[in-house]
Amino acid sequence: MATSELPITHDLDEILRRISDIKHIAGVVVVNKEGVTVKSTLDNSLTAMYSVLVSSLATRAKSIIRDLDPTNELTYLRIKSKKHEVLVAPDEEYILIVVQNPPEPLNS
Amino acid sequence: MATSELPITHDLDEILRRISDIKHIAGVVVVNKEGVTVKSTLDNSLTAMYSVLVSSLATRAKSIIRDLDPTNELTYLRIKSKKHEVLVAPDEEYILIVVQNPPEPLNS
Repeated sequence: MATSELPITHDLDEILRRISDIKHIAGVVVVNKEGVTVKSTLDNSLTAMYSVLVSSLATRAKSIIRDLDPTNELTYLRIKSKKHEVLVAPDEEYILIVVQNPPEPLNS
Repeated sequence: MATSELPITHDLDEILRRISDIKHIAGVVVVNKEGVTVKSTLDNSLTAMYSVLVSSLATRAKSIIRDLDPTNELTYLRIKSKKHEVLVAPDEEYILIVVQNPPEPLNS
């Protein structure tokens, strides 16, 4: 997996580990502006797909929000599907992608 | 505004009116599969932009979810920005787009 030159500081590692430990979190991926994976808790093939596809959607959403109102800015994107929810937080340098499984139904 | 041939039944009109009356709802747009506006509570220029841009994002998200897992399906998309939040519910025939203003800060 080509990873960016970002030094994975101890803090970043610690933050990502704590996110991954939260209940229902299935995976965490950090991608840089070029769509290159910086860090991931998913396997290689999922990491590659999420890095490319989800970051392209976030980039598209960012430009749509700006097209609708040049003074506005995307803060995050939630992509809810039948099987899980993907939370995407785009920053200047990086995109944080968190895959979350739905909470178990109450009666299970 | 070119609108689709869908008969705007009384029920649909009633549902959209009730959604629009909910606090913080700034606008509601219904678009058909071709991206043509079926119904909107926004002005013409916003309607045109939301119909084209947001429905294209929803279509892209739908195909990404399917690329990631062919047995999965997009249920909705939330696009949060500094100024508002856009909720997008894609269905087989139509896409419902709801623009929601953030609730006032507690101390205002």
